[in-house]
Amino acid sequence: MIATLHLPVPLPARSGELTLRRARQDDLVALMTLLSDDPVSAGRGDLADPRDSAAYGSALAELVGDPANEILVVVDDTDLPVATMQLTRIPGMARRGSTRLLVEAVRVAGQHRSGGIGSAMMRWVVEEAAPATRSSLVQLTSDEARIDAHRFYARLGFVGSHRGFKYQVAE
Amino acid sequence: MIATLHLPVPLPARSGELTLRRARQDDLVALMTLLSDDPVSAGRGDLADPRDSAAYGSALAELVGDPANEILVVVDDTDLPVATMQLTRIPGMARRGSTRLLVEAVRVAGQHRSGGIGSAMMRWVVEEAAPATRSSLVQLTSDEARIDAHRFYARLGFVGSHRGFKYQVAE
Repeated sequence: MIATLHLPVPLPARSGELTLRRARQDDLVALMTLLSDDPVSAGRGDLADPRDSAAYGSALAELVGDPANEILVVVDDTDLPVATMQLTRIPGMARRGSTRLLVEAVRVAGQHRSGGIGSAMMRWVVEEAAPATRSSLVQLTSDEARIDAHRFYARLGFVGSHRGFKYQVAE
Repeated sequence: MIATLHLPVPLPARSGELTLRRARQDDLVALMTLLSDDPVSAGRGDLADPRDSAAYGSALAELVGDPANEILVVVDDTDLPVATMQLTRIPGMARRGSTRLLVEAVRVAGQHRSGGIGSAMMRWVVEEAAPATRSSLVQLTSDEARIDAHRFYARLGFVGSHRGFKYQVAE
């Protein structure tokens, strides 16, 4: 939990009355489901398989207790999570000692896509979360296969100036 | 400082006897110089200007005291820093609760480039630092202008599967 973030907040989106709040341990199944509701993620093994509950649960517990990380959910008026994202606050020397805010694992439930939820989340990140964490740069990477997502980030003012490299460590 | 990293370590490179160690507060000027010794960084304001010493110094102090971050230097046999990089350990839910190791701000002094230092640093990251931090994924972004760097990372086994987006927050 990043203590300086003011949460929960109402999230204005076309889909109706939504709230952005910190994830809790009892959101585990909903988070696993959100992560699996995406072909790219599913291809990497995020299948909402109950046998993976222990691994996801211990990651969630670590995130909830981590002062540099925040795992967030967007919930509807019944407190059901319809979207999620993770933020990491990263101090750094480059760019004259700038702190960065890294956004990872942005997911919106299939039936709620194109409802403005993703835009509202990212606007909150750049307008509220970045100043609250004294971050002068917000950054994220998006799989090259996600063409629509790239257009979405560009519309919000993100510049796709970098190549993102990953190295899978042998198990 | 990431406590589970075993440092310092000798770093095998063609340039001679080098050591990878944690950066200290008295490496501040050397780190500012390394960051400025690169046209892309210089274009972003990293100019080793003494007027920026306070900003860099407070970033360095924060990094040295941060349990999720490590700022490293490669030093020659006179303890002079000739390269630097930053590591951030990031727990996460995606990829079945995987922890990632993010590499930022990799810089090798101009006169020491093409001496195998960068390769030796990145091999240490994937072979030693990733297991020591229980990270199953190492990731980094590299400016699209750095064509040679992209070839370098690909040779080391990194996959350039993602687009890296940045959003500069208004001051």
